[in-house]
Amino acid sequence: MKFRITKDDFLDGLQQVQHVVSSRATLPILSNVLLEARDGELKLTTTDLDVGVSCGVSADVERAGETTLPARRLASIIRELPANDIDIEVDAKNVATIRSGPSFFRIIGLPGEDFPRLPDFQESREFKLSQAVLRDGLKKTSYAISTDETRYVLNGIFASFRDGKLSLVATDGRRLAMVENEIEFPQSQEIDIIIPTKAVSELQRLLGNEGEVKIFASESQVAFELNDAVLISKLIEGNYPNYRQVIPASTKERIVIDRDMLYTIVNRVSLLAPDKTSSVKLSFGPDSIEIASSAQEIGEAQETLPVTYSGSEFSIAFNPDFLMAPLRALSEDSIYLDLTDEMSPGVIRTEGSFLYVLMPMRINQG
Amino acid sequence: MKFRITKDDFLDGLQQVQHVVSSRATLPILSNVLLEARDGELKLTTTDLDVGVSCGVSADVERAGETTLPARRLASIIRELPANDIDIEVDAKNVATIRSGPSFFRIIGLPGEDFPRLPDFQESREFKLSQAVLRDGLKKTSYAISTDETRYVLNGIFASFRDGKLSLVATDGRRLAMVENEIEFPQSQEIDIIIPTKAVSELQRLLGNEGEVKIFASESQVAFELNDAVLISKLIEGNYPNYRQVIPASTKERIVIDRDMLYTIVNRVSLLAPDKTSSVKLSFGPDSIEIASSAQEIGEAQETLPVTYSGSEFSIAFNPDFLMAPLRALSEDSIYLDLTDEMSPGVIRTEGSFLYVLMPMRINQG
Repeated sequence: MKFRITKDDFLDGLQQVQHVVSSRATLPILSNVLLEARDGELKLTTTDLDVGVSCGVSADVERAGETTLPARRLASIIRELPANDIDIEVDAKNVATIRSGPSFFRIIGLPGEDFPRLPDFQESREFKLSQAVLRDGLKKTSYAISTDETRYVLNGIFASFRDGKLSLVATDGRRLAMVENEIEFPQSQEIDIIIPTKAVSELQRLLGNEGEVKIFASESQVAFELNDAVLISKLIEGNYPNYRQVIPASTKERIVIDRDMLYTIVNRVSLLAPDKTSSVKLSFGPDSIEIASSAQEIGEAQETLPVTYSGSEFSIAFNPDFLMAPLRALSEDSIYLDLTDEMSPGVIRTEGSFLYVLMPMRINQG
Repeated sequence: MKFRITKDDFLDGLQQVQHVVSSRATLPILSNVLLEARDGELKLTTTDLDVGVSCGVSADVERAGETTLPARRLASIIRELPANDIDIEVDAKNVATIRSGPSFFRIIGLPGEDFPRLPDFQESREFKLSQAVLRDGLKKTSYAISTDETRYVLNGIFASFRDGKLSLVATDGRRLAMVENEIEFPQSQEIDIIIPTKAVSELQRLLGNEGEVKIFASESQVAFELNDAVLISKLIEGNYPNYRQVIPASTKERIVIDRDMLYTIVNRVSLLAPDKTSSVKLSFGPDSIEIASSAQEIGEAQETLPVTYSGSEFSIAFNPDFLMAPLRALSEDSIYLDLTDEMSPGVIRTEGSFLYVLMPMRINQG
């Protein structure tokens, strides 16, 4: 195998696939990237057996072939090379020589035929949507994925293709984020899948703001085809909880709030809510929200946010991180905060299809 | 105590002193910053009992007084405040209220009189030099300080005021960095001190490019007075090794090398010198240095650097990090590499008073 490639193209390809590689792989070849050169293209593939990514970049192939090379080491070498043209030649023993300007590297690889192949898809359903829409949906939900490994069905994003909509849902039991988008598909294609966290992160890396993404889903696997890349992932098996039942059917008060201002104030006030168990208290009064926190033996913080409000006076407490997370992910100027009373979940909505349900905390009598 | 201060002034003061504060202080008050307000000035002081820093910033003092407040929490609050004017009032119980625009904070402090005072100096010797010179000297030597706690006399910079010179020396036994500068002082003032690493780091933070720094040294303590700040530190007690004997009296070959190019190539080639025990090999031939590394079961790297050289052909191996560290700290375009043979230490010099001695490693017969 012998090819010439530009530094930019090679780096671009490596950056798309290298994050899948685990540094503590039990199988040494999983630290490597599979390189396949033929027909003016270099195809790069990595996998950790659960998630696999593959992409193609253009290369001037003099002799077709395949090999695998240590992915991170290769990326660190390519990044440091002095010239833009890189010549790579791999011998029958999978020893690669890399030449670029005055630099010469020789690195030892493993045979391409030992690399686990990404699975083929059978009986999969196919969906198509814009990359920007999927990217936006993942950004607005993925922070709410549970990291509690004992609740493995929550360690991913629930994607439900039903009723002409794609619903993306993430929850950790204390808050839930959902984005819905209408997409076209026949009713016979309806399916629910749970996409694991790692696949979600890799997908977010690959998704751009333009073009489409094709989704192929079967009972146990999902594939995303976009640009010149493919991401394939096993699905989380199990039943996702009935999240619809945690979304309040109705709420009593709606307050329109400047998103950025709410974020800034909660962030500031939460400086005196130092623990995971501490909360910020929102007290609603005539045309104002007082946002406050206090911590024993440390002190307290308080700030008033002017809003348009004439509803009932009450207070509700939230975990500040859980309140700030959606505010950070959203881009709309203002949000709706829908509340009923201090015991009922709060709901954040926007003009779009976004919804975030947040359980209140007990109010400190501090 | 009651004063008004600008956010910028307060932050500037806090940033000068807050790094001394240890997060794992055994004495709670050492996590606090001592605030003393009087005569249009707020003085801020922190100490970990070994190193203390104090600085003054201007403030509009309405009621003089002193208190101590948690340094990091205070800095994080001040940083987030929305308005530039900050009003601070501290009551007799050391509870501070902080107001800025719509923000209100109350934090609980500890009495100022419980704060350990920085020691006064008696029988100290006094020196004066430009901040830029001291800053440059510390930058070019401090990376060579030993981090091996069992060799505590090496855990700092040796500063020798002798023969009309200040010599700054750092070594970890495998390499040694030295910078010498002429400064004026009477012979009766001669003294050698070892300034501990933490004081060196804090001093580097305080030193600017303009103005002078006064140094007060006694047998057990040193103080640096600069701008509106004072840094006081205990000295490391013990005898610094006779470093002069590791500096080769003469070397055989001198090669002039472009500093940046040498750094870039060594950095690149060292990608295949992955362990702490691995080395890069420099092979000197007619008008070239071949720089190479190799690692078993990984591969090898090689690059040739054109230089003007007509001396004897030989190879020498160095730890790549130790070779790169001075190249990173220096600013000169070219350096002198003075060598004798593969067994003798190499010396890096510049046009200035800088000197770096580096022990060679055994050449891998890889």
